[in-house]
Amino acid sequence: MSVTNTQITLARRPAGAVSAADFGCRTESLAPIGEGEFRLRNHYLSLDAGFRQWMNAGAGDNYMPAMALDASVSSIVLGEVIASRHSAYPLGSWVMARAAWERYSTLDGTDVSNIVEPFDDLPLFELLAALGPGGLTAYFGLFDVGMPRAGDTVLVNAAAGGVGAMVGQMAKLAGCRTIGMTGSAEKCARLTAELGYDAAINYRASSNLADAVAAAAPSGVDVFFDNVGGAALDAGLLNLAEGARIVLCGTVAAYESEVNPGIQNLWQLITKRASARGFMFTDYTEQYAKAMADIAGWLRGGKIHSPVTMTTGIENTGQAFADMMNGTSTGKCIVSLLD
Amino acid sequence: MSVTNTQITLARRPAGAVSAADFGCRTESLAPIGEGEFRLRNHYLSLDAGFRQWMNAGAGDNYMPAMALDASVSSIVLGEVIASRHSAYPLGSWVMARAAWERYSTLDGTDVSNIVEPFDDLPLFELLAALGPGGLTAYFGLFDVGMPRAGDTVLVNAAAGGVGAMVGQMAKLAGCRTIGMTGSAEKCARLTAELGYDAAINYRASSNLADAVAAAAPSGVDVFFDNVGGAALDAGLLNLAEGARIVLCGTVAAYESEVNPGIQNLWQLITKRASARGFMFTDYTEQYAKAMADIAGWLRGGKIHSPVTMTTGIENTGQAFADMMNGTSTGKCIVSLLD
Repeated sequence: MSVTNTQITLARRPAGAVSAADFGCRTESLAPIGEGEFRLRNHYLSLDAGFRQWMNAGAGDNYMPAMALDASVSSIVLGEVIASRHSAYPLGSWVMARAAWERYSTLDGTDVSNIVEPFDDLPLFELLAALGPGGLTAYFGLFDVGMPRAGDTVLVNAAAGGVGAMVGQMAKLAGCRTIGMTGSAEKCARLTAELGYDAAINYRASSNLADAVAAAAPSGVDVFFDNVGGAALDAGLLNLAEGARIVLCGTVAAYESEVNPGIQNLWQLITKRASARGFMFTDYTEQYAKAMADIAGWLRGGKIHSPVTMTTGIENTGQAFADMMNGTSTGKCIVSLLD
Repeated sequence: MSVTNTQITLARRPAGAVSAADFGCRTESLAPIGEGEFRLRNHYLSLDAGFRQWMNAGAGDNYMPAMALDASVSSIVLGEVIASRHSAYPLGSWVMARAAWERYSTLDGTDVSNIVEPFDDLPLFELLAALGPGGLTAYFGLFDVGMPRAGDTVLVNAAAGGVGAMVGQMAKLAGCRTIGMTGSAEKCARLTAELGYDAAINYRASSNLADAVAAAAPSGVDVFFDNVGGAALDAGLLNLAEGARIVLCGTVAAYESEVNPGIQNLWQLITKRASARGFMFTDYTEQYAKAMADIAGWLRGGKIHSPVTMTTGIENTGQAFADMMNGTSTGKCIVSLLD
């Protein structure tokens, strides 16, 4: 049986802000899978800001190589196994994998490929949202790295995004006071009205970001969940409480910047006896089940809600990614291939 | 009984590199101590690079305010209680205190003032060296923050200084491979010949410091004890092993710099799942006794030795501090007042 695949390709390396024109689209006939392989029919593609960095030339690191020009764009996908010659990935199972923006992914299990169990009473796409990369990143970053205690002040940047929206709500469940930073007055309103943030800072409207954080966190920041880096990280560094924990999750500010402005205020970690630690949710595969059970319980009980921007059609993936990167869309951004 | 005190004062704020001319000297008659006070006759003054930062305008933080012009220069001192109206500090006891470059310190116990027990078989001044701020900083920073395991690669900068010399030797005792960075070929030779370092890097002779670290640490750095910050920190950040721990001890590079170059490579903490934590030895007062017993045992057994640059005479304190800051002197720098 021949299968026609559609892939989004990296047509050119984005110069600064990513745009839909940076991406191409191609179709190809797929050969039958080989021994040890399995094939996913992808239902949803996850859009993740972190992948932007690997679109830059020479960006490869120990997590992933730089993406190649005219090759498929790397991504997290959620698909059903429709063919398998790999005993660990039986037909009909659901897999969340590091693959590409494509309809079908042919894999051999050597890269990140986790079998996931859909929850009957929750939408399938939540496996890419609250129960997926964004939710799991928030969960492990906040609880394992940030170690919040009741009464702590928690600062989150990119607070209306797929990760930040979850961090803020989880921190409230842990009894913390939450401050969110985001890029518009409208998103600030959503932070406090929909996501339970106690305070919101519009970084684009703040002449002095460190002063704005100081005003919102008069006794300092105990846990700083940093998705952004750059000036946003520096502003938080100037407002740490003693013993603060900084969760280094992403450096969105750097992905689209030609120059690296550097972090000016790292010395604050010394005088405040504070720490900064980097992590990736994929470090915690053995704990996925417990995390997903916890988050599913919160979703069912209405303790948290999962804001999602859903785009339909693989051909719209590049635009959806650009909208996410420039802050037009909020919450977890997903492309549905159920068209 | 009237006592004449001599103090070193901050005559002007150092512009960049500190020099002896930045300091003045004054004498004053001391009044009898008041209720709740005690007076030390200081035998030794500790010279600590960290105090350089508080000589700059506007440098105050939660650890210490910026030093005032024409006031005494803050320091760690070791003195004997020669008068006391404070029950916790009896006559004849020895106190290591945060006080000033001065012959006599009149204190009330509200600032850092720890009673210390001299070891009969070790020189008194070791209470400011291997058994004092340098040794304790090395001990708590390496073991509590760095958490070295046998076989780890440990990178230390300012490696010939009072802290670095101790860190390197303690890391060897923990079964680690040690790499020291310092500022001259002569000091590199001392690192390997006297302080047991497995490799030494002369940062002033390295055209690319990150490459030099990579050559010395082919499988990456597990523990990075950073006394310097700036370019030295950035070079280490590019060579972290997975799960590396960075011990943030000092930022000597910034103390005398007019511009803050910023840290470019902090994002490495994310891809390497690494951490950076700041600390000060004064956070560990309850553990001083055990640490000092451990270090004393190592000194007696010849497992470590304690390089000291001893200067005699309070009037030479400013020059001795400048020599330490510009790298002329090595090991722990102390001023003896037994003249």
